[in-house]
Amino acid sequence: MSTEEKKIPHKIYLDENEIPRQWYNVRADMKNKPAPLLNPGTLEPMGYEDLRPVFCDELIKQELDNDTRFFDIPEEIVDYYKTYRPSPLGRAYNLEKALGTPAHIYYKFEGNNTSGSHKLNSAITQAYYAKLQGLKGVTTETGAGQWGTALSMACAYFGLDCKVFMVKVSYEQKPFRREVMRTYGASVTPSPSTETNIGKKILAEHPGTTGSLGCAISEAVEVATSNDGYRYVLGSVLNQVLLHQSVIGLETKTALDKYGITADIIIGCAGGGSNLGGLISPFVGQKLRGEQDYRIIAVEPKSCPSFTRGKYAYDFCDTGMVCPLAKMYTLGSGFIPSPNHAGGLRYHGMSPILSQLYDDGIIEATSVEQTAVFEAAELFAKTEGILPAPESSHAIRTAIDEALKCKENGEAKNIVFGLTGTGYFDMVAYEKYNDGAMSDYIPTDEDIAKSLAGLPNQPE
Amino acid sequence: MSTEEKKIPHKIYLDENEIPRQWYNVRADMKNKPAPLLNPGTLEPMGYEDLRPVFCDELIKQELDNDTRFFDIPEEIVDYYKTYRPSPLGRAYNLEKALGTPAHIYYKFEGNNTSGSHKLNSAITQAYYAKLQGLKGVTTETGAGQWGTALSMACAYFGLDCKVFMVKVSYEQKPFRREVMRTYGASVTPSPSTETNIGKKILAEHPGTTGSLGCAISEAVEVATSNDGYRYVLGSVLNQVLLHQSVIGLETKTALDKYGITADIIIGCAGGGSNLGGLISPFVGQKLRGEQDYRIIAVEPKSCPSFTRGKYAYDFCDTGMVCPLAKMYTLGSGFIPSPNHAGGLRYHGMSPILSQLYDDGIIEATSVEQTAVFEAAELFAKTEGILPAPESSHAIRTAIDEALKCKENGEAKNIVFGLTGTGYFDMVAYEKYNDGAMSDYIPTDEDIAKSLAGLPNQPE
Repeated sequence: MSTEEKKIPHKIYLDENEIPRQWYNVRADMKNKPAPLLNPGTLEPMGYEDLRPVFCDELIKQELDNDTRFFDIPEEIVDYYKTYRPSPLGRAYNLEKALGTPAHIYYKFEGNNTSGSHKLNSAITQAYYAKLQGLKGVTTETGAGQWGTALSMACAYFGLDCKVFMVKVSYEQKPFRREVMRTYGASVTPSPSTETNIGKKILAEHPGTTGSLGCAISEAVEVATSNDGYRYVLGSVLNQVLLHQSVIGLETKTALDKYGITADIIIGCAGGGSNLGGLISPFVGQKLRGEQDYRIIAVEPKSCPSFTRGKYAYDFCDTGMVCPLAKMYTLGSGFIPSPNHAGGLRYHGMSPILSQLYDDGIIEATSVEQTAVFEAAELFAKTEGILPAPESSHAIRTAIDEALKCKENGEAKNIVFGLTGTGYFDMVAYEKYNDGAMSDYIPTDEDIAKSLAGLPNQPE
Repeated sequence: MSTEEKKIPHKIYLDENEIPRQWYNVRADMKNKPAPLLNPGTLEPMGYEDLRPVFCDELIKQELDNDTRFFDIPEEIVDYYKTYRPSPLGRAYNLEKALGTPAHIYYKFEGNNTSGSHKLNSAITQAYYAKLQGLKGVTTETGAGQWGTALSMACAYFGLDCKVFMVKVSYEQKPFRREVMRTYGASVTPSPSTETNIGKKILAEHPGTTGSLGCAISEAVEVATSNDGYRYVLGSVLNQVLLHQSVIGLETKTALDKYGITADIIIGCAGGGSNLGGLISPFVGQKLRGEQDYRIIAVEPKSCPSFTRGKYAYDFCDTGMVCPLAKMYTLGSGFIPSPNHAGGLRYHGMSPILSQLYDDGIIEATSVEQTAVFEAAELFAKTEGILPAPESSHAIRTAIDEALKCKENGEAKNIVFGLTGTGYFDMVAYEKYNDGAMSDYIPTDEDIAKSLAGLPNQPE
């Protein structure tokens, strides 16, 4: 906590040659490994060959590897990282002043690229391995649009075809996100669509549906597995994604170390877990190895509280039930989150790695209401000059709450949070907030019990 | 031209303490000074007292000062600059590779802040001096929205009231820009409005009008001059704005010098001239002092060609004719630019400083068609990962054209251009381009002759 304030700039930029050359695999340091993916029919663990029809070969190896501590980052990916990394670690001097807190607030800002979020870190990686394997293209789903945008940028760079199923409600409400993807050459289809069997089935059963992430995943997987030269890629939840996203945490740690700062609290928003998992990985590693203790807080919306009100169990990852089962904190794959503008935090489940860490008490979790989140977003925008994404603003809310506790207790703690992205494509949400028309829907216990009743049979 | 390629990173970030501490006033080095503003009634030069009802005191001093070479930047402004400056100087390695050019292409990227453009550099300065003078607030106009956004951020920071008149067509087509301003606490009124006499007059004469920048300026000036504690501020054209924007050029020069790079060609888009003037100021200074020669190119849209087809004459700055007359390259204040998506480049006139430099042959100018501009934008987005603003893409187009000439001639020239901003709020334009529905309207000679016929009487 003894930092020489004068020396810390508003934004810490590392040099280009300080971009990590290896991803860190936190599973290598976990005593309790994340549970394996299961075949939904046989409930047997899925191996390399089982997953090959769906995922790229090299990515499956990363997915299944619980032991290798570091993976070399291919030169071609480092080259692309150089177009937008290292990302800055900001010191929120103005926010601290506005709060009157003795705490020092830092944020790792991943929004300074056209995709507007951290998703590009994994998108460029997955596109690279698809290209390396000689594939024609990849399919994916996108909800809020950050992942689809990132993937379309990555595919344009490597000359791959990119087919995105976009949750219909987002497709209609976020035409500009869609146009960014089209500008990068991706084809974008509203989901559910008539291009897939699962899409047709869902449309027949629910004619007026505006779609869901789970449904879009099913469609993307179906197209990948029924077309030669295509594979499915996913922007969150999976172990491989957390591996790629470890660049966030590694850079954060390098920047902190450079200025002799030791974090006391590390905070990130959690939807599927890609950002949080990436940010905290090296810190969790230290904690698991007994080198350093940290408070690590996952923040989720009260409208979709997987950690704080969900169950740790095997569940379907998608609505169509074509994906493997994953053991995770889940609200049930049939859970319909109440309206919330943080589209990236509306997934019913949570990364198996983070689920295991939470179950083991290595990380904690909290949930926050939407209006309070936008209040925090507005204060951050006005003081620090960055208009944050609604998702990221969950972390801001909790960072502010912790900074205010520090004020009460007179503690100059170092608080680090992940600012995953910008809110430029979320102005409909801000408009609602500016108009005072924002609501805080919270699911009832009955809602959650009902969707949890749909969990599949659990293995022995 | 002898640069050691290996050592130049993809993005050159200066340290926080390398932010300029003084603005550079290029007028001090001009033999032919820019012509003074005139009273539209008497055709007499306007002095300090004449301008006080409209502009902030300190800013008028800057406006009228043709001799002071450097102005100290107040500490409070430097503090704010630190939240988003120094801005990076990018090396477009991937674009060079895609073009197969031996040229080295650099871009000064001003889009990495929430306003999405360089406008914040002057906005925070003008807000600071308004606050210093004890004013309640400021009024302004905005077309494309970048300036209004920047000013609303600046006013939120200093606790000033901010009243923005937004050209009606932009207000309707860019609701998200409007929401960003509202999030920062600004009030945003579509122009022409019934809140001003000039607005009512224009609405009575042209009931279906969608507004113009010239009209919005008149409204903003009227509100500022008829309310106690308010002044009018402007984001381009004026000498003071070019002074503030000199931080762009000063940082660019520091970054180039650091790596031993000498620019051969410097390129910027030109609407009112704020970005171009800021970017080139220190380089023009060297050229005027005979220290170093540069090719300096202003790029404008073929649909609004002030430099390349306009006349160097005194003209009205606004439609309502309430502003002083300025001597500039102009198409006539009645010029109605044909539809073009680069809203920031649709002003009929041009900065008096740049106009004088162009007239003296210090800088050159070119004009480009819209479709070719978006082709350049798409290539830049795909290779360099940044989705550029339509305005900035004019500079990209010309930078690419020059790089292709280098390819033909086998010349490894250093090309530097200003990437003024991002295109996140311009996706309607990209959608048109993606749909192949973009048009290239070019005014006829008759169109231009007709609007130039409306020039005011010229002084002796």
